[in-house]
Amino acid sequence: MHKADIIYAFEEQAGRKFVERVWGKVPTFAVVIGNTETAKIPGVSAAGAVPEITDFTPAADVELLHYGRCKCIDGVPVTPTGIPTPGIITMSALQLCPMPQFAINGGVRVRPHTPYFEIEGTPGGDIRTGKALEDPERVYANALLLGREMAKNNECLVVGESIAGGTTTALAALLAMGYDGQGKVSSSFIDNPHSLKTQIALEGLANAPYSKEEMRADPLKAVQAVGDPMMPAAAGLVAGAAESIPVIMAGGTQMAAVMAMVKGLSPDSLGNLALGTTKWIVQDKSSDVRGIVKQIGPVPILAADLDFGPSQHEGLKIYEQGLVKEGVGAGGISVATFLSSRGKIGKNEMLDAVQRNYVQLMSIMRK
Amino acid sequence: MHKADIIYAFEEQAGRKFVERVWGKVPTFAVVIGNTETAKIPGVSAAGAVPEITDFTPAADVELLHYGRCKCIDGVPVTPTGIPTPGIITMSALQLCPMPQFAINGGVRVRPHTPYFEIEGTPGGDIRTGKALEDPERVYANALLLGREMAKNNECLVVGESIAGGTTTALAALLAMGYDGQGKVSSSFIDNPHSLKTQIALEGLANAPYSKEEMRADPLKAVQAVGDPMMPAAAGLVAGAAESIPVIMAGGTQMAAVMAMVKGLSPDSLGNLALGTTKWIVQDKSSDVRGIVKQIGPVPILAADLDFGPSQHEGLKIYEQGLVKEGVGAGGISVATFLSSRGKIGKNEMLDAVQRNYVQLMSIMRK
Repeated sequence: MHKADIIYAFEEQAGRKFVERVWGKVPTFAVVIGNTETAKIPGVSAAGAVPEITDFTPAADVELLHYGRCKCIDGVPVTPTGIPTPGIITMSALQLCPMPQFAINGGVRVRPHTPYFEIEGTPGGDIRTGKALEDPERVYANALLLGREMAKNNECLVVGESIAGGTTTALAALLAMGYDGQGKVSSSFIDNPHSLKTQIALEGLANAPYSKEEMRADPLKAVQAVGDPMMPAAAGLVAGAAESIPVIMAGGTQMAAVMAMVKGLSPDSLGNLALGTTKWIVQDKSSDVRGIVKQIGPVPILAADLDFGPSQHEGLKIYEQGLVKEGVGAGGISVATFLSSRGKIGKNEMLDAVQRNYVQLMSIMRK
Repeated sequence: MHKADIIYAFEEQAGRKFVERVWGKVPTFAVVIGNTETAKIPGVSAAGAVPEITDFTPAADVELLHYGRCKCIDGVPVTPTGIPTPGIITMSALQLCPMPQFAINGGVRVRPHTPYFEIEGTPGGDIRTGKALEDPERVYANALLLGREMAKNNECLVVGESIAGGTTTALAALLAMGYDGQGKVSSSFIDNPHSLKTQIALEGLANAPYSKEEMRADPLKAVQAVGDPMMPAAAGLVAGAAESIPVIMAGGTQMAAVMAMVKGLSPDSLGNLALGTTKWIVQDKSSDVRGIVKQIGPVPILAADLDFGPSQHEGLKIYEQGLVKEGVGAGGISVATFLSSRGKIGKNEMLDAVQRNYVQLMSIMRK
């Protein structure tokens, strides 16, 4: 039995089989970035100190992962209360378990000062219009091709995301595809603004140029109406790679919405997937990731059993109260790191690394 | 002794050691694309039916490699006399030896309808101005980072290029870096227009904003003045990857100019390099790739011993007379394919595949 700091949160048997397959393997990390105008609706996103700055968050996250510091903004992305991006967790995992990392532009307004893959994505509009994305079909096709190429010399792919406002668009996309997502998507806020999200999603669905049936039959129509630009990019990448290798979908309820797209567009890829997330997501009482994945299929959920409780830093301890929770693939890449190291790296090593990076980045921000 | 259809054209002993290292390994192929206004000077480039269309050639080549057909143009790129792009050779190698392929945008006017890496490159100006590139330092830094990432899960990287007008800019860059390139760069024309190239290069050098000494000391200044956008991108990629893995620089005299940049910017990477090219380049009487590489260092030249003489198609037979000769990494990827297959794939298998693709693509073009 492989021992690692992982919680088998759903479909334990399939989860253990998945762990068996990737145990000791070196993964590749891909982070898909995007912007949606939806993030600028007051109260929707905590992925930025003020709504307007959320355009910079994904690019800044990618820079953080590549350089250990951001270039397009001073300091690092923070919540309105000053808590730093979960990218610090991802960055720490990449330091502990060296693996290739690539950013993919699903559609951003602000581009990172790093190399990244271009796949013809454009930034997303406010989903309340019902006309959120320009050409998700083209983005999906490019990403599918890219996923297939990346699978050719990789044993395991980890796909994360950074997009502010993404749980609101996830709810809308799930509803459009015919899933019950109400009250189930998570939030980077401690108090999950479910009623605001539902109101936004329903307004978008009412304005969609497609019928309910059309959107249920075609996930690309669903996200064209009410999705965000991360979705078709991540779905294509996951579907293309999972035709041949195991893929860890690194995220919470946003990635569950991407998984629903994969089910509709490439059902044969589902058997090669696991959702990799954090303890804070699977233990969250204000959302229900299992309840979403259960509607999609028997895909295992593996949660990194991270514990920031012992930290002396308030900005990290607060994760235990449910702020931030997940993002930038933090949970899934932690899972991948634990498994790649055959359990040698676990919650303690991660907390040490995260604290080291936290101290260093906070000292930069104070300068 | 490993047997393959390869000509050891320079530094045979080092070449055999290099072959030993990559024998049986699966490489990754990266093709760096760019555009330079220099290609539009009449008489400079045969990489397009007319000078104006050379902007489309690199994007069309990348599409050909990904889809087996072009999207941004009808048919495939051809010379003014209708001979198809050497991308057909590259495409054939990729079919015979499946490997991951990635395009990198060094700076193009026309983007391919495929995934590709963005590294903040911009199209190049006419080198006669002495102000050819905007920010080669930034492009080099991004490409260096990318090369390092790509090396993490690869055993061998093959780096090719597609840029029309590239041998003229290669000559100018070599001269700027203090190398004797006159009469030594090759041409896609049968009659190599050396005097035109020299005249263009000298005009650019005369207008450069840097002194001779500055450009000799810093390859990035040299290419900023008279280089093309493929160069800093390919140099960074090669230098970054070759810090840890063997790299085949797939091209002729253009790649020799990139090699000169690598020597100046990352001399420790030189020991991990081989130039991989075609028989038509190393046997060309109107150019001298050995004479350039000799000035750089003891880097082996491996030439794919391709033979299109037995072909029934005039458009392929003419390669034996020295038209086209090389491009889109054709020679280097052929070398990589021969070595990866442990010699099982050779000149005969390549000719069969190239003829098959030629017939198919010509039939599309006639429609």
